[in-house]
Amino acid sequence: MQPSTLHESRTATTSAPHLLPKLHSLAESNPHLNLLDAGCGPGTISTSFAQLLPNGHVTGLDLNTAILPRARQNAAAAGVTNIDFVEGSVFTLPFADESFDVVFCHQVLIHLGQPWEALREMLRVAKKGGVVAAREGDYGSEVVWPGDPALGRFHELMTGVMRAGGGTPEAGRQLLAWALKAGAERRRVEVSFGTSSYCTLNERRFCAQGLCEQLRGGGLRAKAMKFELGEDEDFEEMAKAWEEWAERDNSSLAMLQGQILIEK
Amino acid sequence: MQPSTLHESRTATTSAPHLLPKLHSLAESNPHLNLLDAGCGPGTISTSFAQLLPNGHVTGLDLNTAILPRARQNAAAAGVTNIDFVEGSVFTLPFADESFDVVFCHQVLIHLGQPWEALREMLRVAKKGGVVAAREGDYGSEVVWPGDPALGRFHELMTGVMRAGGGTPEAGRQLLAWALKAGAERRRVEVSFGTSSYCTLNERRFCAQGLCEQLRGGGLRAKAMKFELGEDEDFEEMAKAWEEWAERDNSSLAMLQGQILIEK
Repeated sequence: MQPSTLHESRTATTSAPHLLPKLHSLAESNPHLNLLDAGCGPGTISTSFAQLLPNGHVTGLDLNTAILPRARQNAAAAGVTNIDFVEGSVFTLPFADESFDVVFCHQVLIHLGQPWEALREMLRVAKKGGVVAAREGDYGSEVVWPGDPALGRFHELMTGVMRAGGGTPEAGRQLLAWALKAGAERRRVEVSFGTSSYCTLNERRFCAQGLCEQLRGGGLRAKAMKFELGEDEDFEEMAKAWEEWAERDNSSLAMLQGQILIEK
Repeated sequence: MQPSTLHESRTATTSAPHLLPKLHSLAESNPHLNLLDAGCGPGTISTSFAQLLPNGHVTGLDLNTAILPRARQNAAAAGVTNIDFVEGSVFTLPFADESFDVVFCHQVLIHLGQPWEALREMLRVAKKGGVVAAREGDYGSEVVWPGDPALGRFHELMTGVMRAGGGTPEAGRQLLAWALKAGAERRRVEVSFGTSSYCTLNERRFCAQGLCEQLRGGGLRAKAMKFELGEDEDFEEMAKAWEEWAERDNSSLAMLQGQILIEK
């Protein structure tokens, strides 16, 4: 199955690079690891975790029940069976204390009003000796070249919609502060930064296509209309600007990704 | 010899990660590689390149003759002999066409008025089949947590001084555009993004110490005074803000680094 959206192109390698060395070392002493992917969306990251843990088990959880069949489909298409997907909120995880060796989330906390409460809950379901890992973008670090007024307005739209929904576009830089607020000890938190970027023609087209879908009929457009944060004609202008950007030979887009690992 | 400044803590591993795989593959077919580090400063990156190329040779070049004895000292302290340091401008490199297998620069183009002319010159002295590599920060992507008005003013000061000197604080995102302007073919340029960050207490103290030196008596202060971009008391306030930032348990700083590899 080809990834049909930006979200579906994600794997553990692209989206959890800071967790992988720890994951491998945990799996060496216990091949039967239990991993929770909180806010799994279409489940491609969860599926690749399951492939990395052939004797372990992965649970993908999402609040959005509509996405779960797609997640199951992606796992099945990859021939992965050591996985299941369940409905649930990251604020009230439907699991007992200390259920998982590894608890992970990516591009989840950035959308939440009280992200430290989600981290507190993730820490609750993590086993002692296990780890909680998060990776979240920081829109304050986004660089797009060449610049363009319509792409600038898109940035404002995207971050405006995120804020209107209670989220924090500058999540990446705050992960450590949130982890401490969730009760983690500083000496148990490892902080790092990674990047997400679209540099090759294929990557840029993929990126532009995803953003155009969001602008022409996806969730971003619906939310922008709801919060009265933009107008129809302008969404179309932004979409065209992304399409043109993708085809330029000197263009790229990059953003910092904040990364934390909390040892419990 | 302990690194005495932020600049001196840099090595090929920290500052040329995008070049290393190509460097190793070039060195496999020709162990006698010639590498030019253009704008080498205190020479710690040049020295680590020389260590990676025990049968090759490294030339460090800098316009600032005052830094060259320090660069030679750093190389000697590391026991490195396959290296020499010469005075020169990256705009008029004192070398014949096609002299080097690898031509590298880091945090150099960001300071220049016509960085594409420097890249053109770097391409001139690179051998056919060789490579030109650059890595430059992008201050537009800098994220500092927690935020503080004095640290915000510092960002304006730093980027203002850079601009007043003819440089481009948003260099990272423009490397590809500059490479094309220098005559490189798009299909021969590989673009990527890395990060520089200060997350641990030691890293933050090291960072703050370097910035405080710049504010209390270093080149930044002198340039700011020259361009009338700040005032004495405020430099001291910024320095204190950096010192406080370094000691906080929830603080970090990160920035994107634009990276290009041009195959000649």
